[in-house]
Formats: sequence, C-alpha cells, structure tokens
Amino acid sequence: MSTRGVRARAASLLRRLLARGDARRGGAGQLPELAIVGGAILTMDAKQPLLRRGLVVIDGGRIRVLRERRAWERAPRAQRVIDADGRLVMPGLVNTHTHAATTILRGAVEALPLEQWAAIARRLELRHLSREAAEVGGLVAALEMVRSGTTLFNDSSFFSDAVAESARRVGIRAVVSEPLMDGRNPTRRSPKASLAFTEKLARRYRGDPLVTVAFGPHYPTTCPEPILSAAGAAARRHGVPLHIHLSEGEGHDVAGASHTAYLRRLGLLSDRLVAAHGVHLSSADIADLARHRVGVAHCPEANMMLGDGIAPVAALVQAGCRVGLGTDGPLSNHDLDLFQAVDFAAKLQMLDPRRSAPVPTAAQFLQMATCHGARMLGRGHDLGSLEVGKLADLIIVDLDRPHLVPLYDVYTQLVHAASGADVATVIIHGRLIMRDRVVLTVDEREVLARARAIARPIGRGIEERLALDER
Amino acid sequence: MSTRGVRARAASLLRRLLARGDARRGGAGQLPELAIVGGAILTMDAKQPLLRRGLVVIDGGRIRVLRERRAWERAPRAQRVIDADGRLVMPGLVNTHTHAATTILRGAVEALPLEQWAAIARRLELRHLSREAAEVGGLVAALEMVRSGTTLFNDSSFFSDAVAESARRVGIRAVVSEPLMDGRNPTRRSPKASLAFTEKLARRYRGDPLVTVAFGPHYPTTCPEPILSAAGAAARRHGVPLHIHLSEGEGHDVAGASHTAYLRRLGLLSDRLVAAHGVHLSSADIADLARHRVGVAHCPEANMMLGDGIAPVAALVQAGCRVGLGTDGPLSNHDLDLFQAVDFAAKLQMLDPRRSAPVPTAAQFLQMATCHGARMLGRGHDLGSLEVGKLADLIIVDLDRPHLVPLYDVYTQLVHAASGADVATVIIHGRLIMRDRVVLTVDEREVLARARAIARPIGRGIEERLALDER
Repeated sequence: MSTRGVRARAASLLRRLLARGDARRGGAGQLPELAIVGGAILTMDAKQPLLRRGLVVIDGGRIRVLRERRAWERAPRAQRVIDADGRLVMPGLVNTHTHAATTILRGAVEALPLEQWAAIARRLELRHLSREAAEVGGLVAALEMVRSGTTLFNDSSFFSDAVAESARRVGIRAVVSEPLMDGRNPTRRSPKASLAFTEKLARRYRGDPLVTVAFGPHYPTTCPEPILSAAGAAARRHGVPLHIHLSEGEGHDVAGASHTAYLRRLGLLSDRLVAAHGVHLSSADIADLARHRVGVAHCPEANMMLGDGIAPVAALVQAGCRVGLGTDGPLSNHDLDLFQAVDFAAKLQMLDPRRSAPVPTAAQFLQMATCHGARMLGRGHDLGSLEVGKLADLIIVDLDRPHLVPLYDVYTQLVHAASGADVATVIIHGRLIMRDRVVLTVDEREVLARARAIARPIGRGIEERLALDER
Repeated sequence: MSTRGVRARAASLLRRLLARGDARRGGAGQLPELAIVGGAILTMDAKQPLLRRGLVVIDGGRIRVLRERRAWERAPRAQRVIDADGRLVMPGLVNTHTHAATTILRGAVEALPLEQWAAIARRLELRHLSREAAEVGGLVAALEMVRSGTTLFNDSSFFSDAVAESARRVGIRAVVSEPLMDGRNPTRRSPKASLAFTEKLARRYRGDPLVTVAFGPHYPTTCPEPILSAAGAAARRHGVPLHIHLSEGEGHDVAGASHTAYLRRLGLLSDRLVAAHGVHLSSADIADLARHRVGVAHCPEANMMLGDGIAPVAALVQAGCRVGLGTDGPLSNHDLDLFQAVDFAAKLQMLDPRRSAPVPTAAQFLQMATCHGARMLGRGHDLGSLEVGKLADLIIVDLDRPHLVPLYDVYTQLVHAASGADVATVIIHGRLIMRDRVVLTVDEREVLARARAIARPIGRGIEERLALDER
C-alpha cells in the first residue's frame, strides 16, 4: 500500500471510530450529553484554579458538574465519555481581534511598516475580496482557530455576514462586525449603508447561540464622526460590543486629540468598547481606558510585523485595564494561533525599554487569552473560565509531547512552550467540534480545496511570488 | 472501545504500516535506499530554488538525484518510496545555539532580566543536573527538535558526552561542546579539566557520521583567558567550531574592551567561531565579525524573554556577516522549535527603533535557519541545502493545514505561519527518523516517562509551582 493509501486508511478508520462514540454511551436522553474524566483541569477560576484529576459533566451546552474525581469513583454515566487522562482540560481561548475574511489573502503582503502595509492590504482587499472569498476565508480561519484552541473570536471583516455563516458552519463562537469606514471598500457600501447593514444583521442573529453581531467603526481617523456616534448608540441599544482600532500607529491624532481623548469626548468609552492595538497611549489615555473599563485587544505579532511599537501592556494591567489578546488578521501575522500570540505577548513585554510597570506573570497572560478576553466581549458571566453553570467552551491539550515535558509550571509552559497544534479536542457550546485533531463539523479537505481554487487567480496577480498553490 | 483504546489501536496500526515500508520496496541492495516523489522541493540552493513536482533519490546517506519529475515518468525504483504529493520537501533546519541538557529544567524559571535569570538558572543546574538528567534532557530535546524539523543542532551543555549519546540514539546530527567556565559547575570539573575532557571526547567522536565535538568557552567574562586561548588552538587543531556566548548583556566588557575586540586581540575571530546572541554590538564590532567571517547565532526568543534587547541582525546581514538562528535552551524560551524562532526573528527586526539597515526578507531569514546555519558550523559544503552530492538531511512539511492555506509565497508562509508541528517526516543522513509524525528511532513514551520521573523530585524543590507531573 502506498503511504498515501496508508494515511487515508488510518484517517478514515480514526474518523469512523471517533464518530461511533464510546462504549459507555448510554441509550437514553436522560443521561447527560458529555462527560470528561481523568484529565487535569485548569479552570482559570480563582476559586479552584487547578484540579489534578477532574470530572466535567456537560449538558444542554453548559457545565453541570466540575470537581475532583475521587479514586474509588465509578465511571460517570453520560451519552458520551471522553477520557482525558494525561491531558489538560482548560477554557477555550478567546481571540479578541482578527479579520477572518482576509484569510483568503494570508501572507500576500510581506512585513512592511504600517502605512505601506495598509495601502497594499487595502488594494488587495478591494480587488480580491468577494462575498465568496470572505466566506471561504472565514471557513479556513474558523478551522485554523478551532485547531489551535480558540473557541470565541472577535472579528472585523467586510462581508461580516459571510464570516458569521462560516463560524456557524464550523461551530465556533464569533462576534462579527462590518467595518464602518470612508472610501472605497469591497462591499461597495458607504459607511452609512454598512451601519444599516449591521443593524439588519444584528436583528437576524438576535438570540443566536454562537454569533453576536457587534458594531465596527474602523478607526478614529477613517470612520466619519456621525457614523462613529451612531455606531456607539446602536451598540448600546443592541447590548453588544463596539469594536474599533485604536492608536495603532504614531501621530494618528484626530484634530489634536489622542484617539482615547476623542472617543471620550464622543462618550464612547465604556466597558462595551473593544479597542484593538492601543500601541501609542499616553498615561492619560491609559487612565481613561482603565476608568471606563474599555477592553484593549493586544495584538503583539501584528504590532511587531508592521513595526507599530510595543503596546504598554504592563502599564495597562497595572492601571487595572481590561486587556485581551488578538492575532489580528492573516495579512499581518500570518497565522491565527492564539497560543503563539500569548507567547509573543509575554516575551515582548520583557523587551520594552519604556516599560513603567512589572511584566504580568504567565498566569496573567493566560487570563488575557481566556477569562479577560471573554469579559471584554461582554461574556464574562458565561464564558472564559470553567465553572458550574457556565457555557461549555473548553479544549483538551495533549501534554504527552516532548516540548511540554517536564512540566513544572503549567502557566509558564502553556504561555511559552505550548502551541495550537497541542490542542487535541475542542468543545464549543457543549458540542464536540474537534476530537483528537479530527474536525467533525465540516469537510476540511473540501474547504481547503475551495480556498485554493479562489486563491489561484489571486496568486497569479501577485507578482514575483512563488505560487505553490498552482500545483 | 474507550477513546484511549481507539487512540492506542490507531497509533499501533499506523506504526506497523509505516515500519513495513511501501509496496514498491524492492528486494535487492542494488536499488537506491530511498526515493521521495511528487512533492514541491524548496532547495535553498540559488541555482534551482523551487521544483514544483520533484524527485529526490537518496543512497548511502547522500542525495543522488534531485530534479523535476516529468509527468509521464514511471515511479522510481528504490528500496523505499515516500509519496510527498501535496507536501513540501526542504532542508532540515539548523539550530545554531541551544543547551539540550537543560531540557530537564524546561520552564523552571519565569521570564526574568538576564542577570537575575542567570543566577537562578545556575543554581538549578548545579543542584539538579546529573549525567542521567543531562542524558534524558538530551533525549527529550532531540525528540522535540526532530519533531519540529531540526536536523542539526549546536549545543553547549554540561555532560556534553551524554548529549552526544542522546543525539546518536535519536539519530539527529549534533555539534556538542562542554562549557568552559570558572566557578562551580554540575560536572565538578575545573575549566582546565573540562578542556581536557573535550579533547578526549573529540578524539572519541572523530569520524562519527552524526556527532562533532566542538570547543566551548562559555563567555568572555566567565572563561579564563588562558583557557579561551587554549580552546581556540584546540578547535583549530581539530578543525571544529569554537562555540561561545557573545555580548548577550549590556556592559559586559572585558577590561574596557568589547567582547569582539577582546576576542580579536586573542586571535580568536575566524570562520570557526560561532558566537551566540551578539545583542550589544558596536558598528566596529559588526565590521570585525563580518571581516573575520564569524558566525552569529541569533536567539530572538531568549533575547526577548530575558530582556537582552534586539540584536542588530539587519546590520549584521548588510555587513555581510554570517547569521544563523538558535532557540537557546529551554530554560529561557522554553521550546526548541526553530520554525518559531525564525518567526520571532523576522518580526523582531521590524520593531528595532535603532535599525540602520533594511529588514532581511523572509527568504533570507529562512537561509539563516538552513544553509547559513550549516555554513556557520563548518558544514556548508555538505549540509544546509538540497543539492546532488550533499548529505540527505531533509524534512517534509505538510501543507494541507488550514493555517498554510492559501500559499502565495512559500518563504513568507514558512517564516510566519508554519510551525514545527507541520513537519511530517524527517530524514537525517539518509535515514528515516520520523515518518508521518511517528518517531522511528526511540520509544518516545519511555523517554518522556523517564524525564517525568527525574523531574518529579526537582519539581518538589521548586516552590509555589503547580507540578502537574506529579499525576
């Protein structure tokens, strides 16, 4: 048998066995849907941070039981039982800032300073981002995020409706927003029309278990002031986040005011605001952001790649600010692995020569990637940590990997040594999305084939590049 | 069947099928040992950088055929044929600076400024690094490096003989050196005795296909001058690298001279010298390093984690210096994934406010991780790129991963989106070391179990840490 044949046979065997469920699966609907037994549990909940040998029971999308499992205990009865022995169960990661649709343009721009990069990225989006490209980009992004342990992402994409659909198909939780900005854009809508479109989309998705529609003024300098204010009012009315880019580059002031001061003047600073980047902030800005409980989505990899500078994360944390982590889009990173973002974030703070506060600990960086991220997106009450009654968004990390051995400190190891590829199993809203690295909700090969087909003509348009996808 | 049972059964089936080889395996020794067909080949050789559908034939540890495969061509005859369709064949990565033995202490120190970190790291090594711990640390490190695509590493470890043995057992290529330094150390040898030990080890490994013994004065401030000079002479005599740390921290001058100036005065600057870090270099230092063709092993992750600063990589490259990449040891990173190091390196240069030269391209960063690294270690003639006649150290990267789709530019994607976990297959010296993520040379589970057993009492000694390995 050829290698290819062996691989295909093994994959198919595995998929069938996984789909069949376990021997302990019960017959009756009265049994809880899912139980996870035997793994260590890192809850990200201060009340009981770590259970050494845990038991999680999930039903109706929520965590019903979460406790140490006693040695003498019999196997729990559930429709499906997952053995997590030798693995680590933890909350799914929260990516607080990305642009999923642009995944179809992943890596089409080299590392360049922000302004140059933005001009090229804008041209590429204008030329190549169709609704279908955004949908397929969204699918690839959702698959990549599931595979690397993200269970909730906060997105800003043209064709945000397509991204919402892609997230639902894969089964990942998403906050989507349509960028509200001046100038030509791929949807050919004015900022005002985009705002109206968002309103309609928000009504369509009201009450959806996975998708929340947020309002997305793009940047203080690119979103007209009336639209910015209207978006703020709409976000309040709908009870959803307001998602903006903030002080990514230097000298981007609006009429002499810093972005933070400008937004304060418009009455838009609140715990509803999710501000991506926040690289160039004065201490007055930091105090403002903390006082109004604004969430800052720190994107270390994009900040490095575009030469933005080092965001004052240590100072933000010391000021009591809400800080989450983001990958940013695959045009400026080029991956969506939040385990890598947390590593970059922690290492980058050590390097900041202007740092005025202690570098947060590994545990604090992991909070940014989980519970703080969820809180920033208005979901602190039911996501971001593992607690009885909360929604069951959790991942199981395989610890049987050379790069995770030995394991002296679980936080340090997850921040600095783990990568998204260590995530074995992903459960979102109580539903198994990936098991032992096999995605169960969509046909991954078909999605990748569609993405390659869309990328082919784009690649031909990108000169002097080795478009391997031609193969 | 339980999940555990399913996993075990699938793994065992896969291992058996892989070990059995392919249907096309021939019976006779006249057939070449190995052929790889159908993958794209990134050679890192300027003469033919990329073959879209390649054929590689390997025999006697070397590449015998390397060319485009014609569409009408029959399958090649070889004892073993690997189908690389949809994958990318490229040279194995070269890690130019690490400390494999300390893998047994992975993550035992949090991110701390260099001097504080060094004091704690030294105490931990003194207390916990035995010959057995170094051997097992070396095994875990070698496994991790193979799994992430590294085929050659340059090491500085106490008990370097144990690291050499571990490398040989796993089948990875290594340059090992015993640190020559003042003060107490885990081997309880004086620098002079360590030098004599290295001489003995160099004789033992002369002609070894995988292991080269180098000479390793630790740091200009910690290695006594006579030992430094003697090590330089010994390295010349044996025709092997001289491996040193250089200007990692600020203000580490020796009697008013920069490290580079000091080593120049001792006559030690040459293409034999491999200098790790090189963070704090003047333009005179850079000119000196370039003129004498010294190799600089850039370790971006450790430089960030210990707050060392940003090495002037762009300036070094512009000056014509030899620059390679290193992970440094798992006490200051904490992983050995060179795909991550290259990503950090490329992003970090974009951020340097004092940068005086253009940021190298993604292709240049990939050269550092392959051909330039090999050249620095004196192996440019037979390693670092795929060419007929060179040794067969190569890896096969799986491109069928959401985070690698689409693929517009193979260099950018490998630098910024790929990770070590994408490496499917590793061949070193013509020998299959890992195939489809299954390591074929050692029993990985047994190695990890040994590492955990050694780590258990160490973990108990590290206070206030959650020693999950107790499970």
